[in-house]
Amino acid sequence: MYAQLKLELEADDIDYKKSSNLQGILMENIDTEYAGILHGNQLNPYSQCLIRENGKNIWCIKTLTEEAYEQIIQPMSEVKSVVFKKSGRDVGVTKWQMDRCEERELLDEFYDTSCPKYLDIQFMSPTAFKQDGRYVIYPDLRLIYGSLMRKYSAVSGELDMIDEDLLNQLTDHSSITRYRLQTILFPMEKTNITGFVGNISIRVHGPETLARYVRLLLRFGEFSGVGIKTGMGMGAMRYNRREPK
Amino acid sequence: MYAQLKLELEADDIDYKKSSNLQGILMENIDTEYAGILHGNQLNPYSQCLIRENGKNIWCIKTLTEEAYEQIIQPMSEVKSVVFKKSGRDVGVTKWQMDRCEERELLDEFYDTSCPKYLDIQFMSPTAFKQDGRYVIYPDLRLIYGSLMRKYSAVSGELDMIDEDLLNQLTDHSSITRYRLQTILFPMEKTNITGFVGNISIRVHGPETLARYVRLLLRFGEFSGVGIKTGMGMGAMRYNRREPK
Repeated sequence: MYAQLKLELEADDIDYKKSSNLQGILMENIDTEYAGILHGNQLNPYSQCLIRENGKNIWCIKTLTEEAYEQIIQPMSEVKSVVFKKSGRDVGVTKWQMDRCEERELLDEFYDTSCPKYLDIQFMSPTAFKQDGRYVIYPDLRLIYGSLMRKYSAVSGELDMIDEDLLNQLTDHSSITRYRLQTILFPMEKTNITGFVGNISIRVHGPETLARYVRLLLRFGEFSGVGIKTGMGMGAMRYNRREPK
Repeated sequence: MYAQLKLELEADDIDYKKSSNLQGILMENIDTEYAGILHGNQLNPYSQCLIRENGKNIWCIKTLTEEAYEQIIQPMSEVKSVVFKKSGRDVGVTKWQMDRCEERELLDEFYDTSCPKYLDIQFMSPTAFKQDGRYVIYPDLRLIYGSLMRKYSAVSGELDMIDEDLLNQLTDHSSITRYRLQTILFPMEKTNITGFVGNISIRVHGPETLARYVRLLLRFGEFSGVGIKTGMGMGAMRYNRREPK
């Protein structure tokens, strides 16, 4: 089960730059031993970010496994306020909203529901990739698919493997046809990382199965995030469904 | 000599989408024989575009050789109004402004003036490249440098050759560190081409000579345009000088 908890924060003057502080707050609110396990993980079973929605600050906490749900979302859904350590500031939580999605749901959609050729993605928090030790600050489709496949296979328990042939197929058969993007700095404790935010449209040509697989990855990506430092608040994405014409 | 003629058009309701019509108007205003020669050229000694500056529509006509200056800029600087053929609409020209730049000026700057590590480019009209028969709609540095080197060498009379080693050096030693870009449609007679507009910052590392060479290409690019269909109004770029700190 994938899950998302949205906490509406009673504060107008904070923004995504506080995301890495929120990760600290999250860690303080969950079981210490489990926090230690997470700390050692290569691929996190959770992601979190702070987004602005209808003029409100929404802290989104997402989990990818039952265990992470119980260990993270459940305790966090009881939280009445978050305290920023440095400033001592106490910010109230005014709304809680939970969304769940079964793994099965995405697979059923893959098998049963036709898929448009054009798929829209919104990158909602600074997104970046790492390749050969270098940061990549634009939406390279191979890196997007690769990141999501790795996260997906890690969660499915099929180890941290990706199918190179499938990745090649996906990359060869898709292209970005439209975008509106900009770089933006993501502050961490000691440094800034550059990431990008904005929108892209992907066109998948060739067999429809490929488009369906991309859709599955993107829907999974809404919970996992994409690229680097999704636990700190980077890489939050949304798959924007197109209305059937 | 590189030259630019700016014509201020007395019309609020036209925009860059009229660029390819303006190319037609340009052709009608110059010597028929020379227009024929231009038509057969692979790499144009001119470029033109319609941009918006301080709320005014400015038609920029740029040339890269003495001959093109005499054959294009000179007659165009006498033009009092432009007539759009289809609609029959007659748009007055209210201002003329000429800028000139000697080849020597760019070379002197290359040899004598130090260059910052960061170079900013603005893509002012829809820009795109063609690679292996496919359109590329993002600012790939190799394609930017390659396009400008090709245009530069064609104008310098060194045939249409580019120095692959130098191109590799430039590409290996530069990266985009910041951008704000979006795709936009460029309408031609029968079809639309997607291009991008916006800003990028390039960081050139390694020997300063490389940065100086990039600067030379970018300054040349202000006259030549970059990428495909610069004669129709695509690929207009500006090198934004950073003020020394």
